[in-house]
Amino acid sequence: SGLVHIKNPHLDSMEEDVLYHLDLGTKTHNLPAMFGDIKFVCVGGSPNRMRAFAQFMHQELGLAGDGEDLADICAGTDRYAMYRAGPVLSISHGMGIPSISIMLHELIKLLHHAKCRDVTIIRIGTSGGLGIEAGSVVITDMAVDSSFKPQFEQVVLDDVVVRSTELDKDLAEELLACSREIPDFPTLIGHTMCTYDFYEGQGRLDGALCSFSSEKKLEYLKRAYDAGVRNIEMESTAFAALCGLCGLKGESSRAPRL
Amino acid sequence: SGLVHIKNPHLDSMEEDVLYHLDLGTKTHNLPAMFGDIKFVCVGGSPNRMRAFAQFMHQELGLAGDGEDLADICAGTDRYAMYRAGPVLSISHGMGIPSISIMLHELIKLLHHAKCRDVTIIRIGTSGGLGIEAGSVVITDMAVDSSFKPQFEQVVLDDVVVRSTELDKDLAEELLACSREIPDFPTLIGHTMCTYDFYEGQGRLDGALCSFSSEKKLEYLKRAYDAGVRNIEMESTAFAALCGLCGLKGESSRAPRL
Repeated sequence: SGLVHIKNPHLDSMEEDVLYHLDLGTKTHNLPAMFGDIKFVCVGGSPNRMRAFAQFMHQELGLAGDGEDLADICAGTDRYAMYRAGPVLSISHGMGIPSISIMLHELIKLLHHAKCRDVTIIRIGTSGGLGIEAGSVVITDMAVDSSFKPQFEQVVLDDVVVRSTELDKDLAEELLACSREIPDFPTLIGHTMCTYDFYEGQGRLDGALCSFSSEKKLEYLKRAYDAGVRNIEMESTAFAALCGLCGLKGESSRAPRL
Repeated sequence: SGLVHIKNPHLDSMEEDVLYHLDLGTKTHNLPAMFGDIKFVCVGGSPNRMRAFAQFMHQELGLAGDGEDLADICAGTDRYAMYRAGPVLSISHGMGIPSISIMLHELIKLLHHAKCRDVTIIRIGTSGGLGIEAGSVVITDMAVDSSFKPQFEQVVLDDVVVRSTELDKDLAEELLACSREIPDFPTLIGHTMCTYDFYEGQGRLDGALCSFSSEKKLEYLKRAYDAGVRNIEMESTAFAALCGLCGLKGESSRAPRL
């Protein structure tokens, strides 16, 4: 049916669903009217960047006006920012798995309440590149954890549930084909490693704490490269697991920092 | 000496330290002049709230002006916001352990470069209360994980290091004594549970995914209460572990949501 799957039997019996961190709700907003025609959702860490992306999409789609005055749909909260340009929703998610998870739970319920169909979700943003040219875009075929396993360990109450982190392979190929139409746009498909920490978790030598040598760091990054990892960031495993479970066609494509 | 401890032998040999997510650096900013007299750092999730807190401190301290025009010291980035009012620094950290960890690594290096002495750091903000009156403030004596253990598991490269999450007991007692001087300010000392997830990790029945019953949820929350947990949030174990290791006198006091 192309609808978004909610896997929560409790939701049907709730009189109202408040999407607390988006400052939206089923009683306060007409979600089908506001979002029913959304076909693409692009998410990234920084609110300013997701605003700039929505403005760019506004221009690319040839919509009326210059797109300079796009309103933040979540203006009532400073947790996330949300903009729309035609059928494209552009949302910030902050940094790290817990932050993107809160946003995705509420976004998925929003798309469900709005009765959206055939939605494609793409995560865009910066990342640390591994053995590739700076400025390249990595399209993720599989998100892996810090042990290079394609899995996401979700704590449910005090149990650990292991979830798959595969992404949509057709979508990845489609995005790669698009990139080939643009000159000087180095793009590749590879695994993306997701960590819980930017400094000690990604082998950085410049955090407030660092207990490993430069050699140990390089040895770890080489093992990651040999396992197929081409970039490192902090959200992809949770993104892949949640989108996969809820039937959203998902892809994560990240430009390593220049 | 009261100085902040950096536990990273690589830092001494670095010519420049760029505090990337704070948009500050040792070559671009005179950190001792800007921050050398800081004695208190208060951190919380929301940028708007930390701005309002800095304005409140500005007024409470009787500083010149109405405090309405406080500048965001990190205005060049939208990752975090930072304000100061006299010797008090007020910084946002977003939501979740990965997000607060990035900020704390860079804040701790900032306090080190600025040669600050005897700094007290307090985390303030909202949380979910457990078996206590709504609106009470919980002063954390110990941050615990989702298994109620007073520990934080930090992934360093692909090893797991277990760190202590004890907070400063004298500071907790001092804060409790302060609260007693204010009428109608229900305050208690208790354990704070820190989770990686807001929905499935905290027993919420209204996420996009929910695989447990209302009974299972209540059974888990009762076990948490019996273990001494009085509120639940998403940053305290990483906060306690990092501050403890770097010699910052730390405390986390949270008001459960009304």
